[in-house]
Amino acid sequence: MSDPTPATLLPSWRPGATRDALLAFLDAAADLPVVDRVAYFDNDGTLWCEKPLYVQLAFLVDALTRRTAQDPSLAEREEFAAVLSGDMAKIAELGLVRVALALAELFEGGSPEDFAAEARDYLGRHPGRVYRPMLELIDELRRRDFTVGIVTGGGTEFVRAISEDLYGVPPQLVVGTLIDYEFARDEHGRPVLQRTAAVLGHANEGEPKVVNIQSQIGRRPILAAGNSSGDKEMLEWAAAGPGPTLALLVDHDDAEREYAYASEGATTANDEAITDVAARLGWTVASMARDWETVF
Amino acid sequence: MSDPTPATLLPSWRPGATRDALLAFLDAAADLPVVDRVAYFDNDGTLWCEKPLYVQLAFLVDALTRRTAQDPSLAEREEFAAVLSGDMAKIAELGLVRVALALAELFEGGSPEDFAAEARDYLGRHPGRVYRPMLELIDELRRRDFTVGIVTGGGTEFVRAISEDLYGVPPQLVVGTLIDYEFARDEHGRPVLQRTAAVLGHANEGEPKVVNIQSQIGRRPILAAGNSSGDKEMLEWAAAGPGPTLALLVDHDDAEREYAYASEGATTANDEAITDVAARLGWTVASMARDWETVF
Repeated sequence: MSDPTPATLLPSWRPGATRDALLAFLDAAADLPVVDRVAYFDNDGTLWCEKPLYVQLAFLVDALTRRTAQDPSLAEREEFAAVLSGDMAKIAELGLVRVALALAELFEGGSPEDFAAEARDYLGRHPGRVYRPMLELIDELRRRDFTVGIVTGGGTEFVRAISEDLYGVPPQLVVGTLIDYEFARDEHGRPVLQRTAAVLGHANEGEPKVVNIQSQIGRRPILAAGNSSGDKEMLEWAAAGPGPTLALLVDHDDAEREYAYASEGATTANDEAITDVAARLGWTVASMARDWETVF
Repeated sequence: MSDPTPATLLPSWRPGATRDALLAFLDAAADLPVVDRVAYFDNDGTLWCEKPLYVQLAFLVDALTRRTAQDPSLAEREEFAAVLSGDMAKIAELGLVRVALALAELFEGGSPEDFAAEARDYLGRHPGRVYRPMLELIDELRRRDFTVGIVTGGGTEFVRAISEDLYGVPPQLVVGTLIDYEFARDEHGRPVLQRTAAVLGHANEGEPKVVNIQSQIGRRPILAAGNSSGDKEMLEWAAAGPGPTLALLVDHDDAEREYAYASEGATTANDEAITDVAARLGWTVASMARDWETVF
């Protein structure tokens, strides 16, 4: 295979300062030991579209709807009633974490394999809308011997169910919010794992994204990409490393081809808009409207 | 590179039932999808010698000794006094976990990089004694596209500091006891991680080895290797999977070339000797005396 020339690299990225910054980073990283070439991408809103609803939330709504058809009493629970009626204001009032953990109870006692199968089944029916420019960047990083991982504020095992197929990322490189398991035995005395509805460690948004990447991966990324205030600390952490680094913020400013909105993060609030943080700290901003020739 | 013939594979393993079982497993696994080829090896007593002292405990003793030289008051603490006097009975009475967590406080506030540097410095001065037959098995598995990881009852970051050099295992595939981090900022406002002395999640011995491998790696190994009762559940879990599996127990029965002892595990007690469990469940047993032509 012949190497692409700079002119043919990242074809869905329009010529300009952002694409130049990506190419300059790729060149600078070529001098680093392979062990240091680690890149982490947030998933929702960075690799795939998170509107009108987070894909993982839509999956949980789908699961709740099907279970409620079998057991209507589920609809009486406050968190579930808000979800079933699509009352986003009520969900926000209850808190997305509380609602998500209530929904996690739908899978309590199940095996990791059953959960992965249900996630894959859902995504087979409702495929995620992945950003082509980001896929090109991932492919190019991997071609340059980067370890490319995914970070998510949502559940780890959900993203793992699709990360290999969608992004070529193996399950051990997905860092998200872990739902704890219970070790149990089946009727033959053989070990099985059963999902609980409790978070193991730190829910993965904001500062915990930094703690969890180090804890699970054991290295600091030199490239971090995100789109919301929940990614702020992770991008700062990557940018503060020695040697070449890249903090990349996806700006949703394209109402025509995608959505135009200020990304707030699922569970963190921040007084400063993330695009203002990016400008203040000198991050590289990928404007969907300006920098992407193709979105999907 | 030409493939080795069965006769030249695993040269440090003597011909016999154990080597035959390894070769049969390797052949059977060749038909599996690559994603299912996952092998996990316990470290202490399975990949390297754990006598006369766990390497990680020896490292902590070394760190304590040097810090006590600067601050003699450290020696007054009960856990530290037991360690400094080499009073193994007292350490057992206090509990290895309590002692290990007290020793973890020596690194509190430090960065992941500083801890890794200190671990590497220690191992440069006191290299671990790695079992050559197990290295050959790891190399052969990797040649057959297995993902090979390490599991340890000890601290994850300690093993990560040396796993790439010793075993070719990258840090993200090491599953051990995680010491939590605190997200902080340096004098310039840049993010830094500081070690705490608290365990994040479950201390990694016995049933938690199963929970933690699934949580961190997202897959069930089809080969698990261990040597103590702390590895029992992990070996049972691997063996209970569908398709070809291998549960491999290293039996320390060679007083001449290594040590002869019944492996009890660092933090779990079990009424049944692990070699009896192996016989009852039909695991493959690697007898050091019988099966290994070369030990180190």
